[in-house]
Amino acid sequence: MSQKPSIPRGTRDFSPVEMLRRNYIFDTVRRTFSLYGYLPIETPAMENLSTLLGKYGDEGDKLLFRILNSGDFLSGIDRGELSAADAPELSSRICEKGLRYDLTVPFARYVVQHRDEITFPFRRYQIQPVWRADRPQKGRYREFFQCDVDVIGSDSLLNEFELVQIIDRIFSDLKVRVIIKINNRKILSGIAETIGEKQRITDITVAIDKLDKIGKEGVRQELIARGLSEEAVARLEPVINLSGSTETKLDELEKVLSASEAGMKGLAELRELFGYISRCSFQSAIELDLTLARGLNYYTGAIIEVKAVDSAIGSVCGGGRYDDLTGIFGLPGVSGVGVSFGADRIYDVMLHLDLFPPQTGSATEVLVINFGSDELPELLSITASLRDAGIPSEMYPDPVKLKKQFAYADASKIPLVIIAGSDEIKNRQATVRNMSSGAQTTVALSELPAFIKDGGDAKS
Amino acid sequence: MSQKPSIPRGTRDFSPVEMLRRNYIFDTVRRTFSLYGYLPIETPAMENLSTLLGKYGDEGDKLLFRILNSGDFLSGIDRGELSAADAPELSSRICEKGLRYDLTVPFARYVVQHRDEITFPFRRYQIQPVWRADRPQKGRYREFFQCDVDVIGSDSLLNEFELVQIIDRIFSDLKVRVIIKINNRKILSGIAETIGEKQRITDITVAIDKLDKIGKEGVRQELIARGLSEEAVARLEPVINLSGSTETKLDELEKVLSASEAGMKGLAELRELFGYISRCSFQSAIELDLTLARGLNYYTGAIIEVKAVDSAIGSVCGGGRYDDLTGIFGLPGVSGVGVSFGADRIYDVMLHLDLFPPQTGSATEVLVINFGSDELPELLSITASLRDAGIPSEMYPDPVKLKKQFAYADASKIPLVIIAGSDEIKNRQATVRNMSSGAQTTVALSELPAFIKDGGDAKS
Repeated sequence: MSQKPSIPRGTRDFSPVEMLRRNYIFDTVRRTFSLYGYLPIETPAMENLSTLLGKYGDEGDKLLFRILNSGDFLSGIDRGELSAADAPELSSRICEKGLRYDLTVPFARYVVQHRDEITFPFRRYQIQPVWRADRPQKGRYREFFQCDVDVIGSDSLLNEFELVQIIDRIFSDLKVRVIIKINNRKILSGIAETIGEKQRITDITVAIDKLDKIGKEGVRQELIARGLSEEAVARLEPVINLSGSTETKLDELEKVLSASEAGMKGLAELRELFGYISRCSFQSAIELDLTLARGLNYYTGAIIEVKAVDSAIGSVCGGGRYDDLTGIFGLPGVSGVGVSFGADRIYDVMLHLDLFPPQTGSATEVLVINFGSDELPELLSITASLRDAGIPSEMYPDPVKLKKQFAYADASKIPLVIIAGSDEIKNRQATVRNMSSGAQTTVALSELPAFIKDGGDAKS
Repeated sequence: MSQKPSIPRGTRDFSPVEMLRRNYIFDTVRRTFSLYGYLPIETPAMENLSTLLGKYGDEGDKLLFRILNSGDFLSGIDRGELSAADAPELSSRICEKGLRYDLTVPFARYVVQHRDEITFPFRRYQIQPVWRADRPQKGRYREFFQCDVDVIGSDSLLNEFELVQIIDRIFSDLKVRVIIKINNRKILSGIAETIGEKQRITDITVAIDKLDKIGKEGVRQELIARGLSEEAVARLEPVINLSGSTETKLDELEKVLSASEAGMKGLAELRELFGYISRCSFQSAIELDLTLARGLNYYTGAIIEVKAVDSAIGSVCGGGRYDDLTGIFGLPGVSGVGVSFGADRIYDVMLHLDLFPPQTGSATEVLVINFGSDELPELLSITASLRDAGIPSEMYPDPVKLKKQFAYADASKIPLVIIAGSDEIKNRQATVRNMSSGAQTTVALSELPAFIKDGGDAKS
C-alpha cells in the first residue's frame, strides 16, 4: 500500500502542539465554569434517533450522522420493500442511533431521564465533541467541540447575569477581545405583535438574524418574500434602526411596545439584566442588539451572542433562555438558560491573532542524554529524581550519537538538555544546556531538580 | 409523551459525582504520562472503514459501528442489486466510515499519515472513547475510554522499563494494588518452535491466553482441538508449569529454548528488562508469566498485562511491543511499544474497593444564601470576592425560603454556606456554616476568602 492513509473529510487529527493549545482553551473554560459553581456531566456520543430527530428542523435532521444497526440490519425488511424504499425511508428502518448533533438536546434528555436524582436548580457544564454532516469548509468541521454551561430550574435573571460574567472572564483570561450582544426573545415577540404580524414571529426573527450578512435591504426583501406586508415591514424599520445608549434604546422601545404585554415583559427583563451589568466592571463591551435573533426558536427570554472584535470569524459563543426545552421529553414547566462556547472557532481566532502563550500546557521540559550502559544507572536515577520533583522529563531511549539526541531535543522543542557523561558523573555533576540560548551550566546532581524548577538558566 | 427518554444500550450518562471521580483517574493518568515526557494527540471519532477493516480479525470487523453515508446513500445502487444484497455487502456500499474501535490502529494511521511532521522516537499519549458493538453486560460497555501511551521508532528496552514505571506510578497514586505480568512474544515463538509446532504459534498463544479462565485441562483440550498433537501438547506442559523466582524461570527456560534463536532472543530481552526492574523499587508486584499471550498477534516482543489484586475484574491495563503495526499502512520497519489503561475498569475496581478520596476534583465549595434585592449588591460582591480568590462558589439564584436554600446545599453536598442578611451586612460580617458539623462562625467580610481557603472551620 503506497497511498498514504487519510481521515474522513471535515475531521481532524490533533498533533501534540495543537493539543496543548486546545487544552489551554479547555482548561480556561473548565476552570471558570467550576469557579462559578457548575459541575461536569457527559452524555454518550450516540443517542437514539428518536431523541434527536425533529429537534433541529428539517435541515438538522438531514445533517445527523446515522449509525447502521449492528448485526443483520436487514432482517425483518421485506426484499420488495427494500428495492422500493428511498433513502430517508430506508435509513429509518436500518438505523436506530445517531451521533450527538449538539449538547443542548442531550442535556434536556439527561435532565428528564435523571430528574429524580437531580437537585434543582441544576448547574451543569459539558465539554464534548458533536458531529454534523455539513459541507466541510474553512472553519467548519464535521466533528467539533462545544463547551456548554446551563442552569435549569430557576427563573432568576441572576443566572443570565452570571453567564455574562462567565463569558467576560473566559475571554479576558484568553486575551480575546469580544463584544457581548444581548437581546430578548419577548421583545421580538412584542415587535411582531405591535406591527400586527404576531403569527410571523419566526419569519421575522429568521430574517432579522441575517442582518449582519445580507444588510437592511436584504432583510426587507426576505421579510416580504416570507409574506409580510410592505406596511408591516415599514413599521419594523424604525426598530431595527434604533441607536444610542442601551438606556436610550430601552426608553424608545418602551414607547413602541407599550401595547404589547410580551414586549413590556421583555423590556423589564432587559432593564433588570442591564441593571446588574451596570453595577460591575467588565473587560468586554456589552451591548443591547435588537437585531440579534439566533434563529433557534426554542429561546423564550434572553438571547446572547459573543463576537470576537479583531476577527471576521463570527460568533464564538452564544445562547439564551429556553422555557420549554425539557417539555419535548415529557417534563414541562422547567426553565433553563445557558450558553455554548465554540472551542474550534476560539482556537482559530487565537491562532490567527497569535494569542497562545509561547508554552501552553505541560510539555516535556528536560531531555537527559543517553550515554550508554556504563552511565545508565546514574542517568536513570537523574531522570527519576526530576520526575519525582514533578518536572516532565525523558531520557533518550537509545545511546546514539550526541548530535542526533540534540537534534531530537531541538525538533521536539524540549527547552533543557542534561549532559552527564562519565566525567561529570565522577564529579557528581551534570551540565544543563539551555537549547534556545545555548548557555551551559554545571550543576551538582543533588541540586539538579531545584535548579531546573528555578528555570534552568545559566547563571554566572 | 409520558415515557422517559433513554439512551442506547451499553452507553452511559455520567453525573457530576461520576465525572469528578472519572476525572480523578484521567488526571492521574494524564499527569503521569506528561511527567514521563509523553505528549497528547487526538484522532477523529470517525475513521474511514478502509482504515479499520481487517485490523481486528473477523470478529472485530463485525463489532465496528458503521456510519451511514450522508445524503442520498442509495444513489448509484441498482434497485435489483439492492434487493439481492445481504447485510455485509450492502453495508459496504452504503457506509464509508466507522467509529474508532481502539486507539492503536488510529495511532498507526496517524504516524504514517503525519510521518513527515513527526520527530522520532515519537512519544504520545491518547485518552479518548472507543466504540464496539459488543453485547452489553456488567462491566462491558459499547462506549468506553482507553488511555494509551506509546513510543514509536525506538527498539530500546528502556521504553518497556519506562512503561512498567508508569504503570506502577499510576496505580500507586490511585491506591489500586496491582500485579504487573510480563512475557515476551519471542519466548512463545521459541516454545512453539521447540515443540515442533512453529506454524501454530497463534493457536498456541490464543489457547495459553485462556489459562486463567479455562484452566490447564481446558487449555490442553483447546490445543488438541486446534490440531496440535498429543505429543506437542505434552512437551508444552512443563513450560506452563514453570515456577519459582523470575531468575529460576529464566534459567530453566534457557535449557528448554537453547536451540531456538527467537527463544534465546526473547530470553535476552526479558533478562535485560528484569535487570532494569531489579535495580528500582516498585509498589506493585512484577512477575514473569509465561502463560501471558494477550491474544493479539501484532505483538512481537514484550507483552504486559496488569491485574487488580483485590478485584476479580480482570485486566485493567495491557500492551506490548509491535514491530510491524505501521506496515499495514505502508510504513514498514518502525518498532513501537505501548500500553493501554482501561479507565472504565479502573473506575469499577476503585468504586468497588471504595478507593476514591471523599472529595475528588473541584466541586463547588460555597453557597451564598440569597436574601433578595436589598442585600443583593453585597451578596454579589461577596460571591465575586470568593471567585476572585479561586474558590468555586455560587449564590442561590432565587430569594426563596432559607430552608429550601439549605436543603439545596445539603443535597448538592456543598460543604459551606455563607449567611449574610441585613444585620450581618450592617456589621460588615457574615456567618459561615459548616454543613457537615453544623458549626457556625462569624467572620468579617474582608476576611471571608482567607477564612474559607483556610478550611472554613469553626474556631472557638
